[in-house]
Amino acid sequence: MESDGMLPVSIRDDEVDIVIGALQHDLTQFMEEWRPVFSRFHIIIIKDPDLKEELKIPSGFDYEVYTQSEMQHVMGSSTVNFSGYSSRYFGYLVSTKKYIVSVDDDCLPARDDKGNLVDAVAQHITNLANPATPFFFNTLYDPFREGADFVRGYPFSLRTGVSCALSCGLWLNLADYDAPTQAIKQRQRNTRYVDAVLTVPARAMMPMSGINIAFNRELVGPALLPSFRLSNEGKLRWETVEDIWSGMCAKVVCDHLRLGVKTGLPYVWRKERGSAIDSLKKEWEGVKLMEEVIPFFQTVRLSPQAVTVEDCVVEIAAAVKQQLGQKDAVFKRAADAMIEWIKLWKTIKAQRT
Amino acid sequence: MESDGMLPVSIRDDEVDIVIGALQHDLTQFMEEWRPVFSRFHIIIIKDPDLKEELKIPSGFDYEVYTQSEMQHVMGSSTVNFSGYSSRYFGYLVSTKKYIVSVDDDCLPARDDKGNLVDAVAQHITNLANPATPFFFNTLYDPFREGADFVRGYPFSLRTGVSCALSCGLWLNLADYDAPTQAIKQRQRNTRYVDAVLTVPARAMMPMSGINIAFNRELVGPALLPSFRLSNEGKLRWETVEDIWSGMCAKVVCDHLRLGVKTGLPYVWRKERGSAIDSLKKEWEGVKLMEEVIPFFQTVRLSPQAVTVEDCVVEIAAAVKQQLGQKDAVFKRAADAMIEWIKLWKTIKAQRT
Repeated sequence: MESDGMLPVSIRDDEVDIVIGALQHDLTQFMEEWRPVFSRFHIIIIKDPDLKEELKIPSGFDYEVYTQSEMQHVMGSSTVNFSGYSSRYFGYLVSTKKYIVSVDDDCLPARDDKGNLVDAVAQHITNLANPATPFFFNTLYDPFREGADFVRGYPFSLRTGVSCALSCGLWLNLADYDAPTQAIKQRQRNTRYVDAVLTVPARAMMPMSGINIAFNRELVGPALLPSFRLSNEGKLRWETVEDIWSGMCAKVVCDHLRLGVKTGLPYVWRKERGSAIDSLKKEWEGVKLMEEVIPFFQTVRLSPQAVTVEDCVVEIAAAVKQQLGQKDAVFKRAADAMIEWIKLWKTIKAQRT
Repeated sequence: MESDGMLPVSIRDDEVDIVIGALQHDLTQFMEEWRPVFSRFHIIIIKDPDLKEELKIPSGFDYEVYTQSEMQHVMGSSTVNFSGYSSRYFGYLVSTKKYIVSVDDDCLPARDDKGNLVDAVAQHITNLANPATPFFFNTLYDPFREGADFVRGYPFSLRTGVSCALSCGLWLNLADYDAPTQAIKQRQRNTRYVDAVLTVPARAMMPMSGINIAFNRELVGPALLPSFRLSNEGKLRWETVEDIWSGMCAKVVCDHLRLGVKTGLPYVWRKERGSAIDSLKKEWEGVKLMEEVIPFFQTVRLSPQAVTVEDCVVEIAAAVKQQLGQKDAVFKRAADAMIEWIKLWKTIKAQRT
């Protein structure tokens, strides 16, 4: 396992949950390849409610599996939809840990530019445990990395930074393109290992990919939510935009609460799956909707009364309904799902105390 | 010379000026090492007016030198101060080319992570000739680079991007830290080659280092200006903040005029020079002033009437005088110098037509 040149962070095993949404039933290769990285942590596996086959999971891990019936039991009368890629959000809900790391089940550990296996969990937690710097851009990337610092001109008053709530990792091999791009560039593979982590500046929006992320559940948990579901959504990433929506909710909340979002390392190795050509028809719905979604999130502002993540999400949902509700039914459904999610989050939280 | 993996850009020799501010008299090693990169372009060398010795410049280059007396002739009655690192701005003024590339005279060509010599001019011009994407962050960095693209969720309406006006390069070996940081971490050297270019998002401010930059003179020329001079300024980068100020002017102008600013590649190799400890006393002035400078540039907004770069700079100067003028005399002097610079820029421009 590489030493990734970050300031040392000691990771406590009991502070991390690995959450895996199982969209395929045979997790053998996935778990075996991740064994050196995952085996010391508790793993929450959510079986996609639409998946019929029994899960195959190799032994030697500390894991728990949630299937449809177990999920139903926890959810009670709640109508939150956890199918497909949204299954992972159930894991976010039931986790009690400080940090959550989540990786799609078609991704394997990557190797860095020196050929070392990347410890994606260690890198994500390092990103989250070190401060973020959203209020002024540092041209030498993450100033808290070993061998780096704040460059000349960076105001000292901003050098303590703020807490980092969200860490968005990247992908080698098959990058996270939409279906049209993937269809046009079928042979394109991402081979460039960019050895950098950076804070996304405040008020700048970015397309968060759910493929490889981690977050501080205590700081921003309820903002990572399932709500934006395309009417014809499939079981391939490029047929979905639920994570893009969720990422922009989280970014708006982080900006409002003065928390940081980082992007860059760690990479995962993304395997091929599905045909982009087949998905083209479905994907255009998501692609078209982004033209409304991005301006909305770029301009939405929360009130000073929104002091918790739950408050913030409820305010965003109200704004979605008001500003986008008339444009497409998907937005009204998303707003309702956000409210429903916050209710469920609060219920689960109340049951614990 | 490496192929740097960018979309091919054909650089016309007559579109580029290399501008060098000579703060040391012997440019032999500097020019020899840059020969493979610089020799096909016209070079404007400005001799620091405070430098007494004759310049030593090897033969085989297409260059012109401006000394104090020649500068005086061009400037007429103007009082713009071109001493020290500000000397280069005289070159920006007299250039007639589309693109300007400027590198400090204590920097040599770097090698990339594969050991290839970096063609900093080609990389800068590629940055400038390809669009920038300031209105939404692309997590895979520059989408116009070979092998890269816009990631899923990136709205198609923003994928054409905007013109790139400014390209800020980085430094291997001695990074551009301020004197306190350099004094504390005397042995720290930057060895991490981050193979990335990214657009700094709109409204995010960054500390532009003048050590290694390029810009489109036709788009943003007058915003790269000498004006913010510390009272005790020396001949070492970490004793100055003129470039940081100038970079923030340029960023505000670019944001207002919907132009892009990129940062990242190319790297240059920065040699050691001077003692950070000796500079500590001087530097604190600049460090303290940044606490006023950054909030100012983060919040200043220009009027719709500001439609040229010259208009924008004049509006910024007025805001500096109004908002910062009472706090420190350096700000009033900077505002006056900005106005004086725009006058001189317009005069030179008028003489050409």
